[in-house]
Amino acid sequence: MSTNNLVISIDAMGGDNSPKVVIEGLSLAHKRNPDIRFLVYGDEAKVNEEMDKYPSLKEVCQIFHTEEFVHNEDKPSHVIRNRATSMYQAVEAVKKGEASAVVSAGNTGALMAISKMLLKTIQKIHRPAIISMMPHQNGRYVMLDLGANTECDGINLAEFAIMGNIFAKHALGMEQPRVALMNIGAEEMKGKGEIHVAAHIIKNMNSLNFIGYIEPHDIPKDKADVIVADGFSGNIALKSVEGTCTLIMRLIKQSIKDSFWAKLGIPFMLGAMKKLKSNVDPRLYNGAMFVGLNGLSVKSHGGTDAFGFSIAIDNAANLVRKDFIGSIRKELEHVDLDELSQEACYEVY
Amino acid sequence: MSTNNLVISIDAMGGDNSPKVVIEGLSLAHKRNPDIRFLVYGDEAKVNEEMDKYPSLKEVCQIFHTEEFVHNEDKPSHVIRNRATSMYQAVEAVKKGEASAVVSAGNTGALMAISKMLLKTIQKIHRPAIISMMPHQNGRYVMLDLGANTECDGINLAEFAIMGNIFAKHALGMEQPRVALMNIGAEEMKGKGEIHVAAHIIKNMNSLNFIGYIEPHDIPKDKADVIVADGFSGNIALKSVEGTCTLIMRLIKQSIKDSFWAKLGIPFMLGAMKKLKSNVDPRLYNGAMFVGLNGLSVKSHGGTDAFGFSIAIDNAANLVRKDFIGSIRKELEHVDLDELSQEACYEVY
Repeated sequence: MSTNNLVISIDAMGGDNSPKVVIEGLSLAHKRNPDIRFLVYGDEAKVNEEMDKYPSLKEVCQIFHTEEFVHNEDKPSHVIRNRATSMYQAVEAVKKGEASAVVSAGNTGALMAISKMLLKTIQKIHRPAIISMMPHQNGRYVMLDLGANTECDGINLAEFAIMGNIFAKHALGMEQPRVALMNIGAEEMKGKGEIHVAAHIIKNMNSLNFIGYIEPHDIPKDKADVIVADGFSGNIALKSVEGTCTLIMRLIKQSIKDSFWAKLGIPFMLGAMKKLKSNVDPRLYNGAMFVGLNGLSVKSHGGTDAFGFSIAIDNAANLVRKDFIGSIRKELEHVDLDELSQEACYEVY
Repeated sequence: MSTNNLVISIDAMGGDNSPKVVIEGLSLAHKRNPDIRFLVYGDEAKVNEEMDKYPSLKEVCQIFHTEEFVHNEDKPSHVIRNRATSMYQAVEAVKKGEASAVVSAGNTGALMAISKMLLKTIQKIHRPAIISMMPHQNGRYVMLDLGANTECDGINLAEFAIMGNIFAKHALGMEQPRVALMNIGAEEMKGKGEIHVAAHIIKNMNSLNFIGYIEPHDIPKDKADVIVADGFSGNIALKSVEGTCTLIMRLIKQSIKDSFWAKLGIPFMLGAMKKLKSNVDPRLYNGAMFVGLNGLSVKSHGGTDAFGFSIAIDNAANLVRKDFIGSIRKELEHVDLDELSQEACYEVY
């Protein structure tokens, strides 16, 4: 076993077709990251059956048997009381300091509830958020909150901006990410009060490259690197993008299927289509994170394949290596958000 | 001049390249709807210059000279005080009963402000909303509010459901449109309190085919015909769809441009691409309406062409013929929304 201390705990029982997809994903991540050790929680017999296919992976894994696992339909209020599940145990490993991050493809609400309860929010952060990378026309941006907080005030949004900024620096390798608040207009008085308050707080912090408001149709145009929204609007935007991608791809397939000539043209298009697909392949953006907690908790898409799962591991490892959580704590040392918020509310209302 | 009383007033000075695009659009609409008379407000010399190209259109038009017009950057608070603009005059024609609908491609905020002030909301309706048709995989759905009301309570959302239901019946020709509230989850307790209140009100009305919550990624899957949202979320969803369409089309073009083989395949694909484009052609969905007012006010996209403008006219005429506003009033006779709302709030909170 490696003596390196990059340890990630894994909920082997989350997602469709687990633990098969999870273990195969670990083997892919292991090839790219031989320094990571994995603490694997799940049904020992099933996990071992899969693990036996990857002997070199097995050397960096410790398997912990759990009798139970979280089901998709389980309520968060229920799962936080059951310490026997693979998800609970995997998160608890981060709480105990045995692992630096946890990755699960299980029930999002459950993972969020367990992570919040066990890892607790970073001091000075009021609410954790869900963040993810997404594609724009020239590369990637990050967006938060994608659904953890249905309603947010200005101070919550400002905290998301701080965390998103550091996330973009570390995950996208940017020096000065452009930070924007999602809104329904670019003018100062458009949208909701909490967005105006957040804008004032962020401006007065002076530490972010804040570019103002951004409307959703401008997001794919590479105009900002960090998109900040409340969890309701962020989730609506994310799911609208997903739905539209599926719709257009479906309409394209249908148009080609309906045309004799287009079918003849398919062989010419294969290379271009492959390239297009690789640009928007959702597996490349797999691994939404709960940020704002004292430990990294990463949610892999439940329906992803081994490659997608391995990308979630890569993303988690990258942020651990760059001390993402330490960076957030450091940034917050110099900021008094409550005071800034009071000033901002005075200016706005 | 026709003796028929379908009269539509036109702001000839709104939108890019006006009045040229507007008048050409009228001529296209006139061919399909010879029974419509138009009251055309704008710079008489410029309007006549264009109108001279379409002699048969001229016979059904009355031109009213206005010295001024609303600019894109004009503030709503400013435009409602200037009665001399083509937009103001065109809306006023509806107020006076001289026209049944007004169509403008000008500044959205200005048109909304003038329309609200002059036409007033229908009795029992608290807030007007912006509604539009949009494409899903098998046809069309309608969605509201797309941006008129940043924050809404349960009763507002229930009113939108009532108006959207009638709109879908008339504009899409449906008997029992499936009405859904946009939300970030399908479970009963997901999302915001006002959405839960609206769900209770709508259920208790018993007159709508209410199917519950819908998440944005399910909208293109033909699961509902009327999507109800507050103006902020609705606008975010709309603009996310727009941005994603533009992004994907751009990525497709780029992939083809970068591939020698794909370029060779273009001729085979032309027919299929044309069909695809015709499915999602935004001009076919042109004409967002302010619903809930005592008169139809239709906003054409500022950047559309003559064909797009003519579609907005068609949509307006169709709703006038079906007595859309009368239908809303009739529906509201039997509903006591305030009482239903009190009951719903009691159930939810």
